[in-house]
Parts: sequence; C-alpha cells; structure tokens
Amino acid sequence: MNRICNLFGIKYPVIQGGMVWCSGWRLVTAVSNAGGLGLLGAGSMHPEMLQAQIEKCRSVTDKPFGVNVPLMYPEIDRLMQLIIDQKIKIVFTSGGNPKLWTQKLKDNGITVAHVVSSSKFAQKCVEAGVDAIVAEGFEAGGHDGREETTTMSLIPPVRQITDLPLMAAGGIGSGEAMLAAFALGADGVQIGTRFALTQESSGHDNYKNLCLTLEEGDTKLMLKKVMPTRLAKSAYASLIQAAEDRGASPDELLAIRGKGRAKKGMLEGDLENGELEIGQIAAQFRTQQSVADVMQSIIGGFRDGLTRLDQQVADVFGTNQ
Amino acid sequence: MNRICNLFGIKYPVIQGGMVWCSGWRLVTAVSNAGGLGLLGAGSMHPEMLQAQIEKCRSVTDKPFGVNVPLMYPEIDRLMQLIIDQKIKIVFTSGGNPKLWTQKLKDNGITVAHVVSSSKFAQKCVEAGVDAIVAEGFEAGGHDGREETTTMSLIPPVRQITDLPLMAAGGIGSGEAMLAAFALGADGVQIGTRFALTQESSGHDNYKNLCLTLEEGDTKLMLKKVMPTRLAKSAYASLIQAAEDRGASPDELLAIRGKGRAKKGMLEGDLENGELEIGQIAAQFRTQQSVADVMQSIIGGFRDGLTRLDQQVADVFGTNQ
Repeated sequence: MNRICNLFGIKYPVIQGGMVWCSGWRLVTAVSNAGGLGLLGAGSMHPEMLQAQIEKCRSVTDKPFGVNVPLMYPEIDRLMQLIIDQKIKIVFTSGGNPKLWTQKLKDNGITVAHVVSSSKFAQKCVEAGVDAIVAEGFEAGGHDGREETTTMSLIPPVRQITDLPLMAAGGIGSGEAMLAAFALGADGVQIGTRFALTQESSGHDNYKNLCLTLEEGDTKLMLKKVMPTRLAKSAYASLIQAAEDRGASPDELLAIRGKGRAKKGMLEGDLENGELEIGQIAAQFRTQQSVADVMQSIIGGFRDGLTRLDQQVADVFGTNQ
Repeated sequence: MNRICNLFGIKYPVIQGGMVWCSGWRLVTAVSNAGGLGLLGAGSMHPEMLQAQIEKCRSVTDKPFGVNVPLMYPEIDRLMQLIIDQKIKIVFTSGGNPKLWTQKLKDNGITVAHVVSSSKFAQKCVEAGVDAIVAEGFEAGGHDGREETTTMSLIPPVRQITDLPLMAAGGIGSGEAMLAAFALGADGVQIGTRFALTQESSGHDNYKNLCLTLEEGDTKLMLKKVMPTRLAKSAYASLIQAAEDRGASPDELLAIRGKGRAKKGMLEGDLENGELEIGQIAAQFRTQQSVADVMQSIIGGFRDGLTRLDQQVADVFGTNQ
C-alpha cells in the first residue's frame, strides 16, 4: 500500500494544500470525499471560524481531513489547543521551525506533516520527529522559500536525506506531474493551485476567473526582502514590482503592502488592490472544474501516464538490446 | 525507437548542453562516445577556434556531435557559414528568434533544434520549422527566460502545443530527473550542470571545484533587468546583488558587469571577479566524475527508476482494485 495513503487513511496520495481564503469546508470535504485528503487553511481563520469549519466538515463527511497551520499564526497557542480539543487527527504545519509543535501534537495522537522548501529544513523535520514531509518548490503559489529551489531540484535531495513519507508540492496539478514527482522520489503530492481554482474553493469568483486567464510568466515571486510570495499580476503587484525595481527597503515594502491584502483579493475579489496568491501552473487551466472532475483527471492521468512512460522507456532501450 | 535518438543518430536521448567555456572537444567527444550527443559551445569561441574544435572532434570520434549557437553571437554570419562549410549536421540555436536561421540551416542539410523557455517561443519554433525543441526551466544555469517558468511547469504546456521531438532542460542531472522529464512529456533531456562539472569539461578546476561545494540556495537568477543569468555565489555576484537591492538601473548593472566576466570565472578560474554560471542542481554533486561514469549513472538511474516507479504506482492502485 502507498505510504501516504496508509498514514492518513485515504484512497489516493493527493493532498489538497490548506490555502488561505480558498480551503474552507466545501473544498476540504469535496477532496476528502473524492479519495484525497482535504486540509482546512487555518491561516486565514480566527479560532472560532476554524471550529465552525471543523464542525461543518464533520457534518458533511466521515472521511479523514486535516488542518494546515502556518506557524507564524498570531494566536497559535489558542489555535493549537482548539485543534487538540476538537480531536483533529491530521495537522500540516508550515513556515517556521517544526520542533516548536510536533511533539505536543503527537502526544495528543495527531499525525504531523511539515512543509519545507529546502533539504536543511527537511533535516530539521526528521529531528523534530514529524510523520511526513511536504517539500515545496519555487513554482508554488503563496509563500515560498528564500532559496528559490524548484520542485525538480528539491525532491531528490530531500529524498536523499530521509526515508520518511514525502509529498511533493509546487507545479503539480496533473497526473503527469504527479507521476514526475513520484519519479523524483515522492510518495504523494500536495496540490494547491488547481484546487484553489475549483468550483468548491472558497476563493472569490473574480480571483478564480482572473487566475484562469493567466499566461506563463504572469505570476512572480515578489516581496523577497520581506516574505517571498508568488503573486498573480495585478495593479497591486505592479506597485510592489515598481518599488522593488527602485530598491525599496523592507519597511517601505511592508508599508505598501499594509494589512489584509490577501483577504481583499482572494476572498473579496478586489483584483486591483488585493494580493492574488497562485502558482505558476495556473497558466495550464482555463475553467472552474468540480473537485470530482479534477481528482478523476489527476488519477487517470497518473495511471495512463505510467503506461505511456513504460512504452517511452522501452523505446529508449528497445533497439540497444 | 526513441525519437530523439532517431533524429540525431545516437544511442541515448541525452544531450550535453553547449555551454560557454565548458563545452570543448574533450567534453563533446566523451559524451558522444558514451552514446549521448555532445554539443560544442560556440558562444565562447571565435570562428577560428570553433573550426579547430570541430577538427579535433572529428579526429577523436566518428559519432554524431553538434554545435550550439547563441543567436546574439556577434559574428553570427561568419560563424554560420563556417558551420555550413564544415558540413556540421546538427545545430542547436538559443536566445533569439528561431525564424532567423532555421530555414537556411535546413536548406544545407542541418538538423535544427532551438532552445526556449516558454510555450510562446515553442510555438515560434513550430512556425520556423525546427526539427526539435529544447524547453529549459528556471533552475538551469546561465541565461534563463524572463518568465521564470520552472521545468515542472514548462514541459507539459510545451508538449501540449506541439508533437515535435522535445528535450527537457533545467534541474536534470540524474536518471530519476530524466524519468520525471519523460513523465512530463519530454522525449529526451539536455543536461548542462552535471556535464559542466565533469573531468572532461574545459571549465577551470577552480570553477568546477567551487560549484561542487555549493549548497541549495547558493545559485541565484540575477541581472534580471539586463539578461537574466543564474550565477553561483561569489564576490562578483554579491556586488550585483547589492546593486540590485538598491535598485540599480540596467546601465549601472552593465557597467558593474563589464566585459569578459564569464571567461574570467569559468575559464580562468577567478572566483572573486568572475561570473560563475551554473544550475541549481550543482548542490547535488560533490566530485568531478568522468563523462563515462555520469552517463552510466544517468542511464542506470533512468532504467532502475522506472522499475521503482512501476511498483510505486502499483502500490497506489493495488488496494483499490
């Protein structure tokens, strides 16, 4: 049996990233009901909102689901206590040191995965005793690592340093890319962008529909002096770009950014002033699909991709034998 | 038979990128003799030097080899005439419009591949009538595309728009990564970094040995306002970084850069003042290997990787049937 499926009690090793403003109960339960693992994105929820979302999930599915917690969350003690009290079984942590919370969560019977963007942090995950690792490349949407290591460059060295169950993220939204991630050494995938743009995503239609028109090169890793974040083009992104081009300081960038930009863009649909977090592969998608259709396409592409790959490799060696 | 092998008359669909200062006759013939396709890097050769290198190749191997020509080459008419006169059979062009030279080269019996970093340019390749396309991602060393699209994000859309023989480049230096590239839709791979760091590479030992100590994050795409180039850390790279952080103009950046930086770093081994072009995956290698060992490792990893992948996919579906 696949190790990711075994660890989380799911049918397919496809994790839906717990994204701010997109990963509410509708998306999470749709993914879990389709055989993957849905993750609530606690990063954009007050603890009370998270509790309501957890309750809603439980009323809609009896399948496993989890919660993603960015470790820079301001009220993290309260949030983690709520997660423990609610008897959540799966937590993905991201951004920050995996040693901070892993043991406490595990002591409470929670399976813990941590998201990293470098081998160095994967090593910290091993030392912290996590159950699984997500290694996420530069092409991913939202908050990215400072090293800018891409998924293709990142997965093999992370696999090299640990035998833990490993999920690849960044640039993965199809069965073919999932197969590529497995070839690089992953046991599963975490998919953000493609799920963010489904019908069940809680992102605003303006945001989703704009992302579905993006071309290659229309997202960019910005705000590197502050907190590297991949954003879709927008009036706001152009402001940031201009500031960065003229050498703006971290403080200036933070001032331009202000507060609540992601909420404004992704939840409220303000395409001028909002921050629109999305990955490079948005350029590959043109319609809002249902989660069921997305999962079928990914799993079908994964299975068919292997058949094609078997033939491709045979073609390479066939004439040499 | 594999289409890349068929097109170029080679045993394995592994192309050695025609890199400035690294891709001389020793590297090229070692790769071609090992069953891949070696490419002379004309970008760092005067026409007379290229002629001498071609003659040297022919004295050492009867296997196919080719020439890489960056289309911004200053004496390009003379260079192309030399290539035609020398009856070179394979030319890879890069940087610039594939329509400029493809027809002329093909009229002279030359097989033409063009290197792109976007689907848009892949479409131009189709219109120009090239025989094959190299799609190269953000993680690659040296000159990169402005869109910053990674190999994982780039190969599927390029495959989508054309059925031409397609080679993936950027982040590929192992059989596992080659397998991943095939899963994404490539028919072959172009490998730069790993070959640049072999014993047969004409790069200076200082340059090669420095690159073999790099960690993740130690290369960076710089000079984006001028000509995006992935460089290893060095005193010179720090100068550029500081200038970019303070918002230096394109002219200032060009002034800091001056002339001959890549030659100084990569050929002459000046690690302080030279430009050290190398890809992200340098972090995966620690010793100067022979080309024969590298080829054996890549081809072996490609073959063994498929066996492992077949099992991994069976593990996913095994319990669901």
